[in-house]
Amino acid sequence: MNLSALLTSAGINTAICVVLFSLYSVLRKQPSLVNVYFGQRLAQKRVKDHDPYWLDRFVPSASWIMKAWEASEDELLEAGGLDAVVFLRAVVFSIRIFSIVAIICLFVVIPLNYYGQEMRHDSITAEPLAVFTIDNIQEGSKWLWVHCFSLYVISGCACFLLYHEYIDIMKMRLVTVTTSLSAPSYFTVLVRGIPWSLEDSYSGTVSKFFSNYYASSYLSHQMVYQSGPIKRIVTLKSDAEKLYHKFKHPIAESRCRPMFMKCGLCGGSTPSFKRLACDSEPRRNDFGGSKMRTKECAAALVFFRSRYAALVASQSIQSSHPMTWVTDPAPEPRDVYWSNLCVPYQILWIRRIFIFVASIALVIFYLAPVVLVQSLVQYDKLQALQKIFPVFKGIFQRRFMSQILTGYLPSVILMLFMYLGPPIMFFFSTLEGSISRSRRKRSACIKVLFFIIWNVFFGNYLSGSVLDRIGRASNVSQISKQLARAVPLMAKFFMTYVMTSGWASLSCELIQPFGLLYYYFYRYILRYKDDSSYGTMTFPYHTEVPRVLLFGLLGFTCSIFAPLILPLLLVYFFLAYLVYRNQILNVYETKYQSGGLYWPIVHYSTIFSLVVTQLIALGVFGIKKSKVASSFMFPLIIATLLFNEYCRQRFHPIFKDTAAQVVIEMDRQDEASMRMEEIHAKLPSSYCQFSSKCNNMREPIPVNDCEIGTGVRFEELEGLDHDSPTLVIRP
Amino acid sequence: MNLSALLTSAGINTAICVVLFSLYSVLRKQPSLVNVYFGQRLAQKRVKDHDPYWLDRFVPSASWIMKAWEASEDELLEAGGLDAVVFLRAVVFSIRIFSIVAIICLFVVIPLNYYGQEMRHDSITAEPLAVFTIDNIQEGSKWLWVHCFSLYVISGCACFLLYHEYIDIMKMRLVTVTTSLSAPSYFTVLVRGIPWSLEDSYSGTVSKFFSNYYASSYLSHQMVYQSGPIKRIVTLKSDAEKLYHKFKHPIAESRCRPMFMKCGLCGGSTPSFKRLACDSEPRRNDFGGSKMRTKECAAALVFFRSRYAALVASQSIQSSHPMTWVTDPAPEPRDVYWSNLCVPYQILWIRRIFIFVASIALVIFYLAPVVLVQSLVQYDKLQALQKIFPVFKGIFQRRFMSQILTGYLPSVILMLFMYLGPPIMFFFSTLEGSISRSRRKRSACIKVLFFIIWNVFFGNYLSGSVLDRIGRASNVSQISKQLARAVPLMAKFFMTYVMTSGWASLSCELIQPFGLLYYYFYRYILRYKDDSSYGTMTFPYHTEVPRVLLFGLLGFTCSIFAPLILPLLLVYFFLAYLVYRNQILNVYETKYQSGGLYWPIVHYSTIFSLVVTQLIALGVFGIKKSKVASSFMFPLIIATLLFNEYCRQRFHPIFKDTAAQVVIEMDRQDEASMRMEEIHAKLPSSYCQFSSKCNNMREPIPVNDCEIGTGVRFEELEGLDHDSPTLVIRP
Repeated sequence: MNLSALLTSAGINTAICVVLFSLYSVLRKQPSLVNVYFGQRLAQKRVKDHDPYWLDRFVPSASWIMKAWEASEDELLEAGGLDAVVFLRAVVFSIRIFSIVAIICLFVVIPLNYYGQEMRHDSITAEPLAVFTIDNIQEGSKWLWVHCFSLYVISGCACFLLYHEYIDIMKMRLVTVTTSLSAPSYFTVLVRGIPWSLEDSYSGTVSKFFSNYYASSYLSHQMVYQSGPIKRIVTLKSDAEKLYHKFKHPIAESRCRPMFMKCGLCGGSTPSFKRLACDSEPRRNDFGGSKMRTKECAAALVFFRSRYAALVASQSIQSSHPMTWVTDPAPEPRDVYWSNLCVPYQILWIRRIFIFVASIALVIFYLAPVVLVQSLVQYDKLQALQKIFPVFKGIFQRRFMSQILTGYLPSVILMLFMYLGPPIMFFFSTLEGSISRSRRKRSACIKVLFFIIWNVFFGNYLSGSVLDRIGRASNVSQISKQLARAVPLMAKFFMTYVMTSGWASLSCELIQPFGLLYYYFYRYILRYKDDSSYGTMTFPYHTEVPRVLLFGLLGFTCSIFAPLILPLLLVYFFLAYLVYRNQILNVYETKYQSGGLYWPIVHYSTIFSLVVTQLIALGVFGIKKSKVASSFMFPLIIATLLFNEYCRQRFHPIFKDTAAQVVIEMDRQDEASMRMEEIHAKLPSSYCQFSSKCNNMREPIPVNDCEIGTGVRFEELEGLDHDSPTLVIRP
Repeated sequence: MNLSALLTSAGINTAICVVLFSLYSVLRKQPSLVNVYFGQRLAQKRVKDHDPYWLDRFVPSASWIMKAWEASEDELLEAGGLDAVVFLRAVVFSIRIFSIVAIICLFVVIPLNYYGQEMRHDSITAEPLAVFTIDNIQEGSKWLWVHCFSLYVISGCACFLLYHEYIDIMKMRLVTVTTSLSAPSYFTVLVRGIPWSLEDSYSGTVSKFFSNYYASSYLSHQMVYQSGPIKRIVTLKSDAEKLYHKFKHPIAESRCRPMFMKCGLCGGSTPSFKRLACDSEPRRNDFGGSKMRTKECAAALVFFRSRYAALVASQSIQSSHPMTWVTDPAPEPRDVYWSNLCVPYQILWIRRIFIFVASIALVIFYLAPVVLVQSLVQYDKLQALQKIFPVFKGIFQRRFMSQILTGYLPSVILMLFMYLGPPIMFFFSTLEGSISRSRRKRSACIKVLFFIIWNVFFGNYLSGSVLDRIGRASNVSQISKQLARAVPLMAKFFMTYVMTSGWASLSCELIQPFGLLYYYFYRYILRYKDDSSYGTMTFPYHTEVPRVLLFGLLGFTCSIFAPLILPLLLVYFFLAYLVYRNQILNVYETKYQSGGLYWPIVHYSTIFSLVVTQLIALGVFGIKKSKVASSFMFPLIIATLLFNEYCRQRFHPIFKDTAAQVVIEMDRQDEASMRMEEIHAKLPSSYCQFSSKCNNMREPIPVNDCEIGTGVRFEELEGLDHDSPTLVIRP
């Protein structure tokens, strides 16, 4: 592959991107697709009421780009929460560092590589790509110190930027914590492994334990129930819900018909219908029937009088049998993953181990298709293939086809395979027993990161070697050198990968093909007329964070060795910046968030990329017989690792726990403003396990206000079990 | 080496042991050596006043064995604390499991090995040792399932015993915690990383912070001072101490002369001399001079009103800058390692990393002498040596010499080298910044364990291979097979190692050659007449625990492969049981303890030994081409690892932290018995940083009573800096 082939590929991809972006700008103007492209705005009731002219609706425009560009960080924080801001910061960090890298490499490293060997240069477009890589430098060249120095500058800049981002994000996290004064999770502790007693129900045991040991700070508690038996009751109840909708629907429908844009809001609560609130905690505890008792899980949410008391209770080991009375800080109400709370704590560890083993197995298993893909990249192998299957002979002999095959097809196949990984990892994270949705997503994010780095990055490097010399790379000490040899060779594969997987995935993200398909399926095949039960999605951090980090890794590892990838990467990151801002502002709803916990993942991953780059440099300088340059790599690697350790000591604890000082100050603030009583009154009704409406409703449910969710009262449930569903609808 | 050579070696070693044990039984009766052999009893004032007849003093007797055998666990707990009991439990565990292993192996495995191949058996003493090992089983033999099944039984028994020991020790730990009601450490939190402020001293900052955020539970605090400047003052002061001793000594000396046995006690406090107590906390805080301020470290001990408050404060992150206000549970007063408290917390992490790297380097560096020793073991190499140095020719040709050389010398050399390791590791652990002596010793114990397992066990295995086929073992996948091949070959080396290093080290432990030498040096060269300043030692867990665990590892890994080692090991463990009981009861003083924290080390190490054994079995069965047996190893390995994980989940948290429930109950007990006020009054005087006497005094200082230590009052210190030492001696 030479420069012209690369440019061909870039041209094709740019054209595809422009077409898809234009298509998006048209599609988003269609009023019927507002559910697909404006889920977030619908949820926040921020959709403006304007009906564009018919013609205007079919003319592509760039207005969305302007809007995405102009949005301030506060708007993003409001729309997507801290996680979204952290994600965008990761993109901005990539833009910054790769701009620096690109300047260094394009102006210093590429000329050096290009004139590295005494040779006659043809027309620049016909040059093979290897001319621009470090491959072109002569062995033992004096100029390798420039590469070495460049890597020092790049590492230094990366660490400097990382450090400042970490400080910024830590501050943002603290601000988020201190401003979320009404969040009930700070007052709540999740207790699992409640010991079984013959005399008492779980609820009674919890009550006794906490009123004994935490007499001054214990407020009340709420049991977690098995979803099976009660789910059935709720199903009955939700039939009643449907009835209620049937009553309500014709009115709403007829009122909304002319204005599609407003329609999404019609599913909301109308003032004429109201249901009972789930303020049932005091009454909930006094049942003694053995029936409800068998439905209880050995888990409960315990409410405390102050944030500090809850913090303290969540941090200690409660009992001298450490598998009972296990306390954890409770997640936010909408973040709780209820069905996992019922998993007995005693078997959680074994689940975690099995999932861990299964994840590793999956990562290894996935190498097989990657090896296959790799075999397609190598043109000489393709030509060997055509000797076996003479049918393909005509195809392979056309120059254009061979360029497509070597430059484009392999990464498309790889991409398709890669789409299957994240859902499996997400499923694994569900089985793992995470107590909150955000934690599940974060756990999936880490798994997918390993998956994608191993399969795309190392898989491609190693399988390239494996095909050539099976068995030789089995020696651990040679892996560094193998990687070093493979970098310039594989760079061309990654260049096309950035374009096909990177650029194309952004177009895909904009157009939302799955969303579109699902919407049409929902509307025209299932024939639902009411948009209110059409769900919105949350941001898929578990696929997008690893993707951005993978491109970061590619950027660093190719930086001084094959710098031609950098312009392509920068285009990717710029597009990503615009696209993700747009999506966060318009498409994805923020139902739960982790509070910036994705940043440590970004940080560690970037440090990992830097160290891998430095190790490859060590190998490359070794191959090029520059002892000075390769020995200068050791202090750099050590310094990078020490910097990482410093950041871990300095910042990481704050991302794991909340500081006592902060929490005490918050308590004092509330006490001073006399809000404490009000918060205490709201606490018991803030967590609703069986609110079938909660996830379907369009309104952003005020966090500690469950009035509009269907708070299931347990007295009601008892009744429902025997009688017909009773639903109190007050005029 | 054949069986007769082994028996020769065993005979020599048994004779040496008998001689040394008899020597000990004589030496311990000499009244002049009471300081060497009865340090613990002197400390506890439990030395009986009897003067044996002159003749009786020089007749060896076995009475000490009876006494050691008869001592109950309660006596041991009193004399040596929980750590000593845990250590002896580890020995008892080894005796139990290796008795089972020996029964299985001697009656089932050895006959099978012996008749494993069709061959003419000579006289049994002339048989080479390989006949008794698994080497003698034919390839593809049907009988290998017996070995496989034996390993299942052994692993099952080991896990069963481990589990029950863990439960027992956890209970003992809980009892120790709950009965130590007066221990001041439960009320105390060590604060490091106190932020520097311009307006206030560290002491003022601490006072402000804790009376602000912990108003209801904060009692008082005590600053930690730099040892440099104040040490100088204390030196002046201790000159005054000597003066005081000069006054006191003649009286004591003259009174004690006729009865040596009592003499050790004379250094204690006599009722006619008393010094000021260090009850100076309230006064200590009110100095404001810049002079004392500069001597303060950024660390303090903060006292709380209840154990629960202290527990809670020690577990949370205090501030949103996690490297300031770092809280840890305080160690016991005599356990505090004061000079490490002054190390700025901000640089501790970097120290820890460097020590970690240095320890790894040391472990690797030590392989060199081990390789040298290994070369001596191989007789054919020795014969090659004599061709180079013809001087040795005569020596090597004598059969007896060759037996000595191959069977005895190598492990003596190894042992001497091994004696250097632990002190270096102990020094490393000091540099690491442990806040308590017990933690330092435990950290050293872990380091020495790695050191000894790597150098003695793997070092010998691998270097044996390295010498033969350098480079071949570099492939990771072959290591298991290399180990498997090496086991039967190396078993004979380990047999002599058990005798020379194991049995001999126990004799050495009894005789205390270093103690004797030091005592004679102290008495006849330094010419100290007063025994009171002759220190006692604490039990060297950091060398003894790893040694016992190493022999456990040898036992497991040789068990079904070369079972002849088992009788030798059992003898070792029986002797160890007697010797260590004796030493704990008589010799070592218990100044501080970790509260049974050595058990997790024993547990993990035993699991490690089991897994290594199973991996070797996997290799051996592979070599012997028994697919069934080797595939049956996988479930066993998985089950062992799962068992370990279960124990970690079930027990380990209790060894890390104290449960809230326990601590709250203790507080209530004290409140009910109205002891709280008394405890609060004693708290501020319980920690004395500059008590030069504390370590030298013979009396076991009551843990929260510093009256007899020299509590240095800071007002006094201020004065001392300028004037002559003032010592208040009240009649």
